[in-house]
Amino acid sequence: MSDLAKAIGFSKAYIYKFFESKQAIGEMICTNCLLEIEQDVRAAVDEAEGAPEKLRRMFKTIVKSSLRLFFQDRKLYEIAASAAGERWAATVAYEQRIQDLLQDILQQGRQNGDFERKTPLDEMAKAVYLVLHPYLHPLILQYNFDNAEEAPTHLSSLVLRSLAP
Amino acid sequence: MSDLAKAIGFSKAYIYKFFESKQAIGEMICTNCLLEIEQDVRAAVDEAEGAPEKLRRMFKTIVKSSLRLFFQDRKLYEIAASAAGERWAATVAYEQRIQDLLQDILQQGRQNGDFERKTPLDEMAKAVYLVLHPYLHPLILQYNFDNAEEAPTHLSSLVLRSLAP
Repeated sequence: MSDLAKAIGFSKAYIYKFFESKQAIGEMICTNCLLEIEQDVRAAVDEAEGAPEKLRRMFKTIVKSSLRLFFQDRKLYEIAASAAGERWAATVAYEQRIQDLLQDILQQGRQNGDFERKTPLDEMAKAVYLVLHPYLHPLILQYNFDNAEEAPTHLSSLVLRSLAP
Repeated sequence: MSDLAKAIGFSKAYIYKFFESKQAIGEMICTNCLLEIEQDVRAAVDEAEGAPEKLRRMFKTIVKSSLRLFFQDRKLYEIAASAAGERWAATVAYEQRIQDLLQDILQQGRQNGDFERKTPLDEMAKAVYLVLHPYLHPLILQYNFDNAEEAPTHLSSLVLRSLAP
């Protein structure tokens, strides 16, 4: 709290006028951080043409943006790690929105004939999300540093082969 | 060390006649633990008919056996976690042997026409290993508890769809 007060130039007492607790401040910081990752991912997905390329961009951007945000700042990482480990509301909502985005891309690819339609959509979405999950969870991501550069390419290629009609 | 000495009924001094250090004892325990997982996996793979079923069994058994060994005993888990986090020789060798086994199964499936042969074998093996890795790494596995029951089925199905000729 002292660091935060110093960084933004207000007294601790003043900050506590706006927040109920330290936890509430942590949750707001975490929500903002996850929203920033999500915005990066949505921008990259919107920019891409066609579901296969959107999926590639999603994998790539989630890893890149998570690494940048979680690991640029030790304190930010600690908040994100607590949020993921203790399943704060911000984390649960973020993971759900990422799953929804993934499902939208799969749905679009199925409609356009880019992806197969034999496997039930929810099963497909669940499996692909399981592949992605280790790269958006800050506590897991720290053990994937060595792979983080090439994993998105390898994994999205594998997933796209599995989605091929 | 005191716990270990008590458990096996020898004095600490006697144990140190056989091992250079506490680290050496930890490495031996870790090596044995990983060998046990590997034996379970090989037995399950050998028992199965055909490369696709072997791959399914590999995913399933690695998760089941890792969960059992890593999490039945807090001390054993701590050793395995240190070994994975600090990349002890036992962990590096274990991961390599699992990758070799995976590559053998893929190779066999390609020869028998169960798997496609367009994707280079090493690229295929690398991608599949990346999918499996979060479930054999004790530090990551602890965050996959909620998924551990159904993940092997979903992931091996996704992988098998991606390997289909």
